[in-house]
Amino acid sequence: MYMRSMRKKILTPKKFIKPSYAYLVEKKRDGGEFSQEEIRYIVDSLYDGKLPDYQMSALAMAIYFQGMSAQETATLAEEMMLSGEVIDLSRITRPKIDKYSTGGVGDKTSLVLTPLAVVCGVVMPMMVSQDEEFLISSLDKLDAIPGFNGVMNLEQFSDQLHETGCAIVDQSPEIAPVDGRLYYLRQNTATIPSLPLITGSVLSKKLAEGAEGLVVDVKWGNGSFIKDVEQARQLARSITRVGRSLNRRCVALVTDMNQPLGDTVGTSLEIKEAIELLQGKGPEDLQELVLKLGMEIVRLAGVAGSTLSAKQTVQRHLADGSALEKLKDLVAAQGGDPSYIEDTSKFPVAKHIRKLPAPKRGYVHTINAGMIARGVQMLGANRNNPSKHVDPAVGVSEIKKVGTQVKQGEPLMMIHYNDEAKLESSLDYFKQAYRLAPKRPNPPQLIVERVA
Amino acid sequence: MYMRSMRKKILTPKKFIKPSYAYLVEKKRDGGEFSQEEIRYIVDSLYDGKLPDYQMSALAMAIYFQGMSAQETATLAEEMMLSGEVIDLSRITRPKIDKYSTGGVGDKTSLVLTPLAVVCGVVMPMMVSQDEEFLISSLDKLDAIPGFNGVMNLEQFSDQLHETGCAIVDQSPEIAPVDGRLYYLRQNTATIPSLPLITGSVLSKKLAEGAEGLVVDVKWGNGSFIKDVEQARQLARSITRVGRSLNRRCVALVTDMNQPLGDTVGTSLEIKEAIELLQGKGPEDLQELVLKLGMEIVRLAGVAGSTLSAKQTVQRHLADGSALEKLKDLVAAQGGDPSYIEDTSKFPVAKHIRKLPAPKRGYVHTINAGMIARGVQMLGANRNNPSKHVDPAVGVSEIKKVGTQVKQGEPLMMIHYNDEAKLESSLDYFKQAYRLAPKRPNPPQLIVERVA
Repeated sequence: MYMRSMRKKILTPKKFIKPSYAYLVEKKRDGGEFSQEEIRYIVDSLYDGKLPDYQMSALAMAIYFQGMSAQETATLAEEMMLSGEVIDLSRITRPKIDKYSTGGVGDKTSLVLTPLAVVCGVVMPMMVSQDEEFLISSLDKLDAIPGFNGVMNLEQFSDQLHETGCAIVDQSPEIAPVDGRLYYLRQNTATIPSLPLITGSVLSKKLAEGAEGLVVDVKWGNGSFIKDVEQARQLARSITRVGRSLNRRCVALVTDMNQPLGDTVGTSLEIKEAIELLQGKGPEDLQELVLKLGMEIVRLAGVAGSTLSAKQTVQRHLADGSALEKLKDLVAAQGGDPSYIEDTSKFPVAKHIRKLPAPKRGYVHTINAGMIARGVQMLGANRNNPSKHVDPAVGVSEIKKVGTQVKQGEPLMMIHYNDEAKLESSLDYFKQAYRLAPKRPNPPQLIVERVA
Repeated sequence: MYMRSMRKKILTPKKFIKPSYAYLVEKKRDGGEFSQEEIRYIVDSLYDGKLPDYQMSALAMAIYFQGMSAQETATLAEEMMLSGEVIDLSRITRPKIDKYSTGGVGDKTSLVLTPLAVVCGVVMPMMVSQDEEFLISSLDKLDAIPGFNGVMNLEQFSDQLHETGCAIVDQSPEIAPVDGRLYYLRQNTATIPSLPLITGSVLSKKLAEGAEGLVVDVKWGNGSFIKDVEQARQLARSITRVGRSLNRRCVALVTDMNQPLGDTVGTSLEIKEAIELLQGKGPEDLQELVLKLGMEIVRLAGVAGSTLSAKQTVQRHLADGSALEKLKDLVAAQGGDPSYIEDTSKFPVAKHIRKLPAPKRGYVHTINAGMIARGVQMLGANRNNPSKHVDPAVGVSEIKKVGTQVKQGEPLMMIHYNDEAKLESSLDYFKQAYRLAPKRPNPPQLIVERVA
């Protein structure tokens, strides 16, 4: 394992004269390009706590407006990675591929792809950082299984990868700590949506997890923090380009997040849907996304040489139940009760289920996925809900997707709830999320672009 | 006097729902216009210490890039003014006009204009804030007179204005304290050169000093922090427009700062030159600038109705020695020894005077005024020099101005110094400041534009 303490000896440059932080802010304000030494100095100063927050946040805003070159972004990612531990997985001989998603509503692909990749011959280290407060992370979902533990140290993480081939754990504070500090500042200074800063943040963490390649799912739409498809394309290009310049294989898909993925949003509800997918069933959009991302993983890993063989590899391991078995292994390895995966009726169910009735007849024209997520959050489904207590039973199911025809009063979705008061506050979100129209809309394109 | 404690009762809005600071940063990042309530909330939050520095500095950078409307800038100036005491000079019936300069090298106009205005019938409150570290402020200069005291409280300031008609004092910490806090952040985050922030800063302080009108001297060039004439014009327009919208009479001159003003830079040397000007003598450029600014002051005050009568009023009070007498009153009122004004040989002189020889024959093509200022600073002439001790005797005199023809070895200026080591470090600056050329250059235009 890389130890940060080794770093100073290797990297401390001799001739570099430290500039003032104000000078660095001014340089970026005027569109200048930082040298590698300057970026290293910024990251070191953040690590040491010498760069005051107020100067760093002004710098972040200057970067928001002036951008960063690919070279600057690569250096930022690498230096932030080196601000913490870098996991050495070289004792694992199988290919190691990581997956990153910018985050989406109803997205259970990680729960499916992680075991799937392993049975296809790919090791998948998966650290989960919850960026968007209204989303339900993979760990929030797995926590619905009694005993499941998503917190482990880097040695345990590495050991489990060696033994089980995969792990789904909380982001370790030992990984890229400077990114954590910068991320906090960015959250409170409107500088999250800076492409180079996102790229640096994602890659600094992902590259430290020890994978040789990275498959990225960049989501755009009303359920993503990226509202503009062109920005999503740019981010996909930025991450793959910078990732490659840091000697990692990278591929990105730009995908739609203008409606929830699949038919459910919640914790237990989403695990059940993930299990369906691992049985080769489940909603079409998720099946397609799992297939496409799975193919990218096995191709990037080199276990499949062609598109056709990648497709066959993925489909076979879904059909034969081996990926589902691997999910059980994963759950057991992390202390969870694997019988829940076999018998999903063990998951808690909500006391009440009611429909959200269509206010008129027509076609589902648009669904605001962000609104659905916030409604589900109000029901108590994620850790950021007002009571802070996660209710694994609540959520929504049987979501009518864009393009579906409905009669007046027909359910747009089913709401699973335990508390009338919480239902009240969530109903506003759900009602506002749906727009019906008399004509059938063009369904949104699920996979917009592949960037390699 | 306005007391800040009165404010909460008057201004606290009832219906305003406080936004998050991050939201305000985002709004400005995206080019939004703040409401009056929002700006009031920002200033109040700065006053209360509730708005964290790191969010304020990100906001300042967003303002740097996105600007502010005239309405926003006016509200910012007014709210920052109301963050401290506002001096009430209504017991003084004569017109009260203030003067502000963005700062220049060799600029002694304030020492001349302050007493001159009074004898023309105008009361002039003058608080000095030293913004540029390499400049010598009016107070640094007056400190060369034994006993002179530039620090007083607001009551003493008001009393002296009532009795003497003028005062030259240090910026009071009771005036616009929020500006002080913001200014500190801006200095260290490369957000000084934002036109609306400069405008808000200047007007918040100047309007609190109790004047009814303001004459502004916006300097552009290598000796100013404004290097671009177009930016200087914009700042002149911004300050006058916003000042008028706050019900103050305002006029601005955009003037040249591409060479030192007058023939001297130093403390005692500059006072002596100011006294010459008050005797109707002195270098042409300063005579012209004093005349033009003086005319603006008397016209703005309404004591002269026409340009011609303004000119005659100013010239008469310089010729008859009354303005010089008033400078003695000012010095005496602030505890200084007025005999220094009568007999300038009392000022300390440097042990050594040597010439800066012209390296070749030719015309003085350009002079970098900033370099001259830094050289004089190295000699020990201002409080920011390395030893922190001000030497009132040092400086430069007989400065050959742009367009002057010189022979090789002829002095470009005379250097007054007390310390050989300091001379060495200043010589580099002086040598680099001068550029000679074989052809006579067009002399820079002293007064570029009048903005009213």
